[in-house]
Amino acid sequence: MGDCIFCKIIQGEIPATKVYEDEKVLAFMDINPLNDGHTLIVPKRHAETIFEIDPQDLIATIKVAQKLAIAIKKALDSDGMIVVQLNNKAAGQMVPHLHIHLIPRWENDGLQIGKWEMKPGDMEKIKDIAEKIKKEVG
Amino acid sequence: MGDCIFCKIIQGEIPATKVYEDEKVLAFMDINPLNDGHTLIVPKRHAETIFEIDPQDLIATIKVAQKLAIAIKKALDSDGMIVVQLNNKAAGQMVPHLHIHLIPRWENDGLQIGKWEMKPGDMEKIKDIAEKIKKEVG
Repeated sequence: MGDCIFCKIIQGEIPATKVYEDEKVLAFMDINPLNDGHTLIVPKRHAETIFEIDPQDLIATIKVAQKLAIAIKKALDSDGMIVVQLNNKAAGQMVPHLHIHLIPRWENDGLQIGKWEMKPGDMEKIKDIAEKIKKEVG
Repeated sequence: MGDCIFCKIIQGEIPATKVYEDEKVLAFMDINPLNDGHTLIVPKRHAETIFEIDPQDLIATIKVAQKLAIAIKKALDSDGMIVVQLNNKAAGQMVPHLHIHLIPRWENDGLQIGKWEMKPGDMEKIKDIAEKIKKEVG
């Protein structure tokens, strides 16, 4: 899709810190992380929401989400993980290309998920974390 | 699993307002809804989190989540949908049996997802909504 920022990342037209890629799915670091290791999983074929995505693309995406959840937990020794996927603006979706957020949690990390601020992360730190995750994804 | 409340619902030992069931997956209304139509999708075979669930059970669960998301949106004319799945206590998981929350959203519904209060819903209203959803699931 012409103006879709995630399609442009998939096409390599916009840079991203990728941690996993296969034929159907791409995983890359969120540049506005809610917590260390905040990762996005996206189907390569454009679909806006869960309402219209091809079921096979959704399945491919959730398979990668599981793989990455396990890898991120191991890489960062997290205590838990939020898996969240927002559909349409009314639900807070910011980019209209389906994406699953993986947000690691630690006991007493103080994260308040209700305060979803678009606050840019430290890119060096994000890249270091991505390297750790890539080692675990294999 | 002996003490698992969702396994007991699956076994029929604890009542629930079911909206969909197949060989591998059950969907029922959350009795503490964050919004009208708040539904839970669970694999029948016990698994605590995304870290250990059998991938085939996860796939079966997300397929039903998509089916229900479409049905709920249509039944309740919602503007959007939050799909969220919490892993481990550190992430706010209350029942240690994997479950996907479908939380319908409407423009200006004022829902603050950060204030996840366990507030019992009106059971009559929940049952009415469940009937509408069941008609759409088919």
